[in-house]
Amino acid sequence: MSSKFISERNIKFLLYEVFDVESLTAYEYYQDHNRKTFDMVLKAALKLAKDLLWPLFEEMDRQQPELVNGEVKVHAAVRKLMKEFGQGGWITSRVPFELDGEQLPHLVADVCDFIFQAANYSANAFAGLTTGAAHLLESFASKELYDTYVPHMYAGNWQGTMALTEPEAGSSLADITTMAEPTDKGFYLIKGQKIFISAGDHDGVENVVHLMLAKIHGAPPGVKGISLFVVPKKRPTKDGKLTSNDVVASGVYHKLGYRGCPIVQLSLGDKNDCRAWLVGEPHNGLKYMFQMMNEARIAVGMAATSMSTAAYYASLDYAKTRRQGRKVSQKDPGLPPIPIIEHADVKRMLLFQRAVVEGSLSIIMQCSKYVDLMKVLPDDEKEKYQLLLEILTPVAKSYPAEMGILSISQGLQCLGGSGYCDDYPLEQYFRDARIHPIHEGTTGIQAMDLLGRKIIMQNGQAFISYVAELQDAISAAEKYRELEDQARQLSKALNNLQEVTKHLLEIAQSKGPELFLADATLYLELFGIVTIAWQWLLQGIAIHTALENGVKKTDLNFYQGKMFALNYFFGYELPKTLALSHRLINNDALTVEMETVHFSD
Amino acid sequence: MSSKFISERNIKFLLYEVFDVESLTAYEYYQDHNRKTFDMVLKAALKLAKDLLWPLFEEMDRQQPELVNGEVKVHAAVRKLMKEFGQGGWITSRVPFELDGEQLPHLVADVCDFIFQAANYSANAFAGLTTGAAHLLESFASKELYDTYVPHMYAGNWQGTMALTEPEAGSSLADITTMAEPTDKGFYLIKGQKIFISAGDHDGVENVVHLMLAKIHGAPPGVKGISLFVVPKKRPTKDGKLTSNDVVASGVYHKLGYRGCPIVQLSLGDKNDCRAWLVGEPHNGLKYMFQMMNEARIAVGMAATSMSTAAYYASLDYAKTRRQGRKVSQKDPGLPPIPIIEHADVKRMLLFQRAVVEGSLSIIMQCSKYVDLMKVLPDDEKEKYQLLLEILTPVAKSYPAEMGILSISQGLQCLGGSGYCDDYPLEQYFRDARIHPIHEGTTGIQAMDLLGRKIIMQNGQAFISYVAELQDAISAAEKYRELEDQARQLSKALNNLQEVTKHLLEIAQSKGPELFLADATLYLELFGIVTIAWQWLLQGIAIHTALENGVKKTDLNFYQGKMFALNYFFGYELPKTLALSHRLINNDALTVEMETVHFSD
Repeated sequence: MSSKFISERNIKFLLYEVFDVESLTAYEYYQDHNRKTFDMVLKAALKLAKDLLWPLFEEMDRQQPELVNGEVKVHAAVRKLMKEFGQGGWITSRVPFELDGEQLPHLVADVCDFIFQAANYSANAFAGLTTGAAHLLESFASKELYDTYVPHMYAGNWQGTMALTEPEAGSSLADITTMAEPTDKGFYLIKGQKIFISAGDHDGVENVVHLMLAKIHGAPPGVKGISLFVVPKKRPTKDGKLTSNDVVASGVYHKLGYRGCPIVQLSLGDKNDCRAWLVGEPHNGLKYMFQMMNEARIAVGMAATSMSTAAYYASLDYAKTRRQGRKVSQKDPGLPPIPIIEHADVKRMLLFQRAVVEGSLSIIMQCSKYVDLMKVLPDDEKEKYQLLLEILTPVAKSYPAEMGILSISQGLQCLGGSGYCDDYPLEQYFRDARIHPIHEGTTGIQAMDLLGRKIIMQNGQAFISYVAELQDAISAAEKYRELEDQARQLSKALNNLQEVTKHLLEIAQSKGPELFLADATLYLELFGIVTIAWQWLLQGIAIHTALENGVKKTDLNFYQGKMFALNYFFGYELPKTLALSHRLINNDALTVEMETVHFSD
Repeated sequence: MSSKFISERNIKFLLYEVFDVESLTAYEYYQDHNRKTFDMVLKAALKLAKDLLWPLFEEMDRQQPELVNGEVKVHAAVRKLMKEFGQGGWITSRVPFELDGEQLPHLVADVCDFIFQAANYSANAFAGLTTGAAHLLESFASKELYDTYVPHMYAGNWQGTMALTEPEAGSSLADITTMAEPTDKGFYLIKGQKIFISAGDHDGVENVVHLMLAKIHGAPPGVKGISLFVVPKKRPTKDGKLTSNDVVASGVYHKLGYRGCPIVQLSLGDKNDCRAWLVGEPHNGLKYMFQMMNEARIAVGMAATSMSTAAYYASLDYAKTRRQGRKVSQKDPGLPPIPIIEHADVKRMLLFQRAVVEGSLSIIMQCSKYVDLMKVLPDDEKEKYQLLLEILTPVAKSYPAEMGILSISQGLQCLGGSGYCDDYPLEQYFRDARIHPIHEGTTGIQAMDLLGRKIIMQNGQAFISYVAELQDAISAAEKYRELEDQARQLSKALNNLQEVTKHLLEIAQSKGPELFLADATLYLELFGIVTIAWQWLLQGIAIHTALENGVKKTDLNFYQGKMFALNYFFGYELPKTLALSHRLINNDALTVEMETVHFSD
């Protein structure tokens, strides 16, 4: 098995050359950091990934979690992993100094997550969920709640979760039925069921802290009546011990992949003693949860990118070493077989992967940069980045998630029959990655979010900012002769996206929301391709800036290779927008008009 | 778990209304059959599938084959299955009466395989391989070889295999190194290794008969030196017993899916006592094997269609019964949740599946019809169908294989989180189906076969016949007002395909084979979409013929549903040809010029 799962060179290219993370250190908030500290952090992350996470990649898949005597048993290494993530400061990497964190730019911290997830997604999930849950409490919980729970989570001793989904409410949170009964003792009593809770129970930690959505008795119907609670598996007593809180793991799912991390069913309050503490104001829970959910959505995009990246390097390694056949122009069977990477069709499969994974990483890091800018800029300059982040969240989640499956599938294909067998990791990546278009809001949900909310929010201001960002990149790229053609192509694709958007907004006006949103998923796909083309153009500018400044010969291969991947994207992927816009301009209302009876045979 | 895995209504529509299987009974060879016998056969196939195969679908996946004491142990039911397939006449369904077969039209026999594979692909593979191997012996073996082996295979007592792949020769058969040493006793002695042999060894039969490619000592290099042998696991002795033939199962693969059927590594002649009997002439082995290989390629397309069909019905069942959310135009949380099939995006996912699976089944049955016509027509009329079959084989293999993965993935998506868990069958279909773009020649190999061989064979005569077939369908469809638009679209897409083909042939002339074939896989994809659009147009003609003749109200839903699926294909799938031809007309030689060093980081 190849030991390369990420490219350090590419990470540094994006971090320093494309997104210029060093520029953030000019701001007071990040002034204690510099390139040297960033490099040290990256080195430490890579060491942890290589030494601890990567060796467990296969093993954690093969030994999937099981429910034993009411507790979920996970791989024995999880306890050690959580300690390492806690003590190593990885859970607190984005937390301010004043709360004992490392106050790292998101750009750097997110790239560390990328490295961890590429090494072993399941292993990183425990810490990742804890990070998000702790951040939610940091933002909205009272000091008392914060003090009670968060330090244990930062230390990696207690697991954090997000507990939203219920048997009858998956994508439709309006329908949750978990109820919270107020008491006069400062807590609520919870009753209900939660399903599909990642890391929702396990024996790798001392306690599990659920950030849970529930409805207070008498709350308004629908999403306006949802509140956010802290519901621990075990609640701390006054003497500092932990006592059972009537939260029962009632089942663990057996899944296609992502097997190292348990997905759990929870039964709450069977004994009428499940205590919960309200976070923030009543009935505002969904608003708070959206912080964690939006972070989680981008994190899913990152996770998909990580797996696809690792799969790409595994298939690249195979393609370089496996010899088979001869060039189509040299069919003499007397000649020795060539490494399969020399076949144009294999190169195409590798380039497809590279174009997808390096484009995906770029859009995720673009989002990280926006988060960082929001931290350091004055309020009046922040709004633009907030809007860009809002409009890009569904894209940064769904493009890597959907394309990651295809990318990994092509990686598997490079190995032929070996790709189908578990002697190689490709089949595991193929299984693992299939979760990403589902969790944290399906692709269909992301599509409705993009077209139905983000495009029209604030009179289209987010979309206007998005278009402006792309136009800036196009103008910058036009200055390089080698990028003129690609800049023109992106400009055309962007105009096209604007026309499609305008057309759909007219449909919304004239024909109503059903038809407007019927092909939202295709719109998301179109939007995604244009967005990744933009990211490749930004990379193109960085490539030619470097080449103009002169690079070493070994580095020349890197930059030239990058240009091939860029050109692949423009040559093979961007044209797909032709088909998508052709469809989106059509309004035959097929999927609106078809009725259930038409599926009867 | 839904118990519907195929649509009888759709099968009969294709069999009787689109491909008019009854018309074959006008020919002497099929004159003993009629609609009644066909219906009886279908009924029996469905019964076998429901009673025996379907209940084992999950179980055979969970208990995967293992190598125990030198023999591969499979699920205990395999012995019974093979007997049923033998005694029920399913292995001999296409065999002439004179050889004790049922002499069924391929159209009918192939549809029975479709039913079996939709119920349980792995379970059917044992019999399917035996059918193909027996047919190969029927075509090319001496009477003595035939009598020694084939009756046992027809009876389901002996397993048949195709043994081609070797550790250093997967897609490149020119490089096989398994050697055959002539003796003066009428047999050869074999030495070598074979890998990835489906059903290559197991305890569900008394014997295994390998149809094996090997090179006779001193043979010409490359594919011109390959001969075909019968290599039994146990060879029959003169007293009618079986004795070991020095064929050792040295390993069994653990696979992503397709787990009910063992894929085996074989070691041959370790003790210098592996006897082999030549089939036909020396050095002609590949030519003979191509009969089985071509049949197997179409069978893979059928298998992919079967799985995707079963996955479609599983997701359809879920979508009809699972309630979640409300219409986008009715957001009142007081309203009850609706079945998710009523959401336009879910309908879109279901329609995509239906358009793919019913289009795929149609092209496979089109090939079956050509095989049947070749059986009954005089020699001078046969050639056209031979050529059509040749050009369509890579398409009928690859379109269902590649699109099946996407179709099943959309099926899984319809179930959300449940699709990712093994409580539902979608995750298994997703795993099972990934083999199809790999085995019996990868998609890349099929693409080279289509563009590099089939398009140019006999001065392009196969392509000319293909174009004529499509033009006939277009002319016939134009007569129906409701199909005018689709006929026009297909006509445009066909012209476009012809232009792309012409352009590529010019590249072949001016720039050589490397660039000509660099994007062959995209060409295959383009060709596939145009081909399936043709098949949908043929179905459209049958739909409107039926509607003109008047149909029952319940049947009206079926025909209207079909029209939605047809329109989906033309509305959503056919436009993809725009992107593909845009790319294929471009000749930036990206994948030819990029070098291995460019993948260095």
